Amino acid sequence: MMRESSSKVLLETDRILLAHGSGGELSHELVASLFVKVFTNSFLDPLDDMAVLRLGENRLAFTTDSYVVTPVFFPGGDIGRLAVCGTVNDLAMGGALPLFLSAGFIIEEGFPFASLEKIVISMQKTAVEAGVKIVTGDTKVVNRGGADQIFINTAGIGLIPGGVSISGSLARPRDRILLSGSIGDHGVAILSSREGLQFSTTLESDCAPLNGLVASMLEVSPQIHCLRDPTRGGLSSTLNELARQSGVGIWVEEQRIPIKEEVRGACELLGLDPLILANEGKLVAVVAPEAAAKILQRMQAHPLGKDAAIIGEVQEEPGGKVVLRTSIGSTRLMDMIVGEPLPRIC
Amino acid sequence: MMRESSSKVLLETDRILLAHGSGGELSHELVASLFVKVFTNSFLDPLDDMAVLRLGENRLAFTTDSYVVTPVFFPGGDIGRLAVCGTVNDLAMGGALPLFLSAGFIIEEGFPFASLEKIVISMQKTAVEAGVKIVTGDTKVVNRGGADQIFINTAGIGLIPGGVSISGSLARPRDRILLSGSIGDHGVAILSSREGLQFSTTLESDCAPLNGLVASMLEVSPQIHCLRDPTRGGLSSTLNELARQSGVGIWVEEQRIPIKEEVRGACELLGLDPLILANEGKLVAVVAPEAAAKILQRMQAHPLGKDAAIIGEVQEEPGGKVVLRTSIGSTRLMDMIVGEPLPRIC
Repeated sequence: MMRESSSKVLLETDRILLAHGSGGELSHELVASLFVKVFTNSFLDPLDDMAVLRLGENRLAFTTDSYVVTPVFFPGGDIGRLAVCGTVNDLAMGGALPLFLSAGFIIEEGFPFASLEKIVISMQKTAVEAGVKIVTGDTKVVNRGGADQIFINTAGIGLIPGGVSISGSLARPRDRILLSGSIGDHGVAILSSREGLQFSTTLESDCAPLNGLVASMLEVSPQIHCLRDPTRGGLSSTLNELARQSGVGIWVEEQRIPIKEEVRGACELLGLDPLILANEGKLVAVVAPEAAAKILQRMQAHPLGKDAAIIGEVQEEPGGKVVLRTSIGSTRLMDMIVGEPLPRIC
Repeated sequence: MMRESSSKVLLETDRILLAHGSGGELSHELVASLFVKVFTNSFLDPLDDMAVLRLGENRLAFTTDSYVVTPVFFPGGDIGRLAVCGTVNDLAMGGALPLFLSAGFIIEEGFPFASLEKIVISMQKTAVEAGVKIVTGDTKVVNRGGADQIFINTAGIGLIPGGVSISGSLARPRDRILLSGSIGDHGVAILSSREGLQFSTTLESDCAPLNGLVASMLEVSPQIHCLRDPTRGGLSSTLNELARQSGVGIWVEEQRIPIKEEVRGACELLGLDPLILANEGKLVAVVAPEAAAKILQRMQAHPLGKDAAIIGEVQEEPGGKVVLRTSIGSTRLMDMIVGEPLPRIC
């Protein structure tokens, strides 16, 4: 009851809050109460990371994301690499083969040309790594103080192969929940590089294109029901989204979730929950129970899935909720975040 | 000589200038020296407003633009209407039927929810007007001062009908240059609503989706060689782009260019050239001489082309240049702008 009323208070604000961009509860409320309500159409309504468009014989996937991460360069990546990976991954999470990206730059007057060049080269390097082409773009420059350094939007087009049907709404009781590796690396890498928050870590962002991993998983089994990358809002938001879209209960074993020591340490230091930290090179897969072992094995054979684990399973109850079984054997609901603990993480 | 050296000085700056986003000379240099060089591929290289992608039997058009206009609401439109029209028009300028749009919002913390709602409703209204669907989106919120109110990126997908082949590189000697209506309306409407620049005008932005006008032109003749909407950088930049891409000379009769009295007056008051003012609901068409009359007639029968005029023709010389024959009979080169007289016009 408490939570419901506090969320209600936040919603009734007449101004946009940082939390509306958090990927958590308020983001979902904004999408549901404004965007879906106004733009309503059959493509947008499924609320997956991408829209599926039929064009003749083809099923196209189409998605977009803007990137506002700060700092622009961070351990393991930069805003350019993130802008390519994020959109490639949204396409891959629908089982699509990513093909083409657009790139829209909003740059603050005075931004160093050398930094822009470094970012653009990083985008191209990442595009080659992911096998996609950046085919169209746009650049706007705003006055000093009109934007914070540089923002990049990428939109992406992919092709969904015949026979592939992956959506957040397809989780079924008894399905297994697979996670491709350790969580929180991106969030901690960004935090470690922020002014005033410097703490010592050798940790790098996990930022990587996941389409190769997905293709290799689909090779061993078509029985992949949901795929999602736990970015903003972390593993917690992703599992809650899947539970809600599919109307199922998701049960997760805390001790099976891979978390690096550096991430655990940083979270203790900063009072953060690794379950809500952003990841940029990890995926959650919900798969048929009979296919789980061979999909896991294939994931572990891929460089981006070597620490993959089965972290839980789908049950009928509690519908729309995520239950965490802690290492000491108790259970608690794993909530979606309401506020915004980490603005501009991506 | 003077101009060449001043442009060189600007290029050699190590920081991004407002002029890099002007749609003029420096924008083109940035695109050529960085984006095309690094992202180089056969889709990007033609430098049209959109990329043409082959997918099976279909030719898809794909484009993107970010919108940073200030103020967000202006006479005749708002950033939402602009974000839909701009991308729909880029698709239409390749002869494509616009089908699907993405929408990426970057919002400053504290932006009024009611304003966002008004913008989103305006986007949907404009999407319905243009016959397109907004199918996927993203919202990022940045801290107060991290962005100026709201920026919107839209990317668009369209289908190019068989037999249509329109590109900035296809202008041929003897082709006629058609302009769909009066220039400078958008630029003056934006300026009139800026703080500190208030002057009295009843003028509204011409912001409108042009795909209906293009479809009706293509109905009467397939002999449309180039189409382009003179947005940032105005008529002057657009004609220079076409002259360069096609390697032809473009000759324009100044007195045939429709300009409203209010625009002429405002330009005199502010010391601006209407030829460089942005338009958001106008197009330039380069068409075969034998088709010019019937295409013009069809344009004039459409509400968005009622003031259409033939304003000039293509010649072999001077290659890559635009020549303006003034009303007193003299001729001068119509240059592309180098600096940025009007930042954040779209």
